[in-house]
Amino acid sequence: MDAMQVADTGHRVPKTYRVRTEIEAILGELAEGDPVPSERDLAARFEVARETVRQALRELLVAGRIRRQGRGTVVSRPKMLQPLSLSSYTEGALSHGRIPGRLLVSWDDVPADADTAAALGLAPGSPVMHLERILLADGERIGLESTFLRLDRFGGLRADYDPTTSLYAAIQAAGVTFAAATERLETVLATPREAALLECTTALPMLLLHRHTTDSTGAPLERVRSLYRGDRIAFEAVLRE
Amino acid sequence: MDAMQVADTGHRVPKTYRVRTEIEAILGELAEGDPVPSERDLAARFEVARETVRQALRELLVAGRIRRQGRGTVVSRPKMLQPLSLSSYTEGALSHGRIPGRLLVSWDDVPADADTAAALGLAPGSPVMHLERILLADGERIGLESTFLRLDRFGGLRADYDPTTSLYAAIQAAGVTFAAATERLETVLATPREAALLECTTALPMLLLHRHTTDSTGAPLERVRSLYRGDRIAFEAVLRE
Repeated sequence: MDAMQVADTGHRVPKTYRVRTEIEAILGELAEGDPVPSERDLAARFEVARETVRQALRELLVAGRIRRQGRGTVVSRPKMLQPLSLSSYTEGALSHGRIPGRLLVSWDDVPADADTAAALGLAPGSPVMHLERILLADGERIGLESTFLRLDRFGGLRADYDPTTSLYAAIQAAGVTFAAATERLETVLATPREAALLECTTALPMLLLHRHTTDSTGAPLERVRSLYRGDRIAFEAVLRE
Repeated sequence: MDAMQVADTGHRVPKTYRVRTEIEAILGELAEGDPVPSERDLAARFEVARETVRQALRELLVAGRIRRQGRGTVVSRPKMLQPLSLSSYTEGALSHGRIPGRLLVSWDDVPADADTAAALGLAPGSPVMHLERILLADGERIGLESTFLRLDRFGGLRADYDPTTSLYAAIQAAGVTFAAATERLETVLATPREAALLECTTALPMLLLHRHTTDSTGAPLERVRSLYRGDRIAFEAVLRE
């Protein structure tokens, strides 16, 4: 039992962390949407430099405890909880009381790169349908979703699918059943393009979800790469034996 | 179709990002464990300030593409993939070819806070067993796991359980079956204490996993809070209809 080796002693608590903890206590007394006291007020109250307060507030922004609103800063709502399941973003958002929405970024036929081709069972360079959309929750940009589909199965979507609505609903309406999915979840930093589309900075940690789905015959349906704002969303999975 | 509104034009590609992309191309030519060219060499090669290179390298550290080794920096291995499943950390690590290990930080009886009490079906303040361990993969500290157990069910572990081994194996050996779990996954920043125990900085994004498990009667078994290094691990779930 090597407990001494990692004993919980002697580590330094930086001033920023102490100030962050004290600000969190203040936030706990406030309601969602309430303005956060100013940097100057907080620096005076804790008798620290404004730069210390600024760093603590930056960490609370990353944690999603506070958010910018216009020229000020207010207390955030809790993170949105999105189920890891075969259901669509639409269903997940609605089940947690958020109004889902989408903005179309692009919808093109592109040559499949090696990963996309392998995921969809095609030869590299085969044309695939690529749909890129910003995901909204109550009007706020919380994710950027990039979907690749086989043209031979889903080229027909071009005719009457509205890309600001649920893609899963359209695919299911066409008689296709989602049977299984593999999802991989990790943290990444956004590229400048992604940060611009999500109206955040490249310093904000993101949750990146890779998803491959198959139908009941095991045939691949789609490859999806979704990037979510780490300060706005958490994922939940229910696992059974 | 409001594609124009979010059209992919006019965003600025910062110099740091361009340099990061160019360094990534260099890393792609190197093998795991190879030394990364020095800041000075990279700055000269790309004709940028050393601070620009330093920032790009910092982002690649956060992304887990490179890591510190001794006084130098080397190319990382790919992230470890941990299944989101009812299996233990031990099984997950072994299934991906990593040797699991644990260091004991603390093992105490503590009064349950409100969340722990609710999760375990106890009155707040009831004593619970708290086991805190550092998770190792091939000897590297990759996670910090905090487990809360009911004393009335698991007090017997005190007698002969070795906390550097799998807790799940010990619980299952006692005849208890894990039947279901709810897991919540989000990104957070580490506290200074957590960063010290994981030998990383508080600037590194973490994956925080909250887990509640129940047995086949629906009775709560444990509440677990696991913090994983976001540069070292990704999670994978297999979902079925």
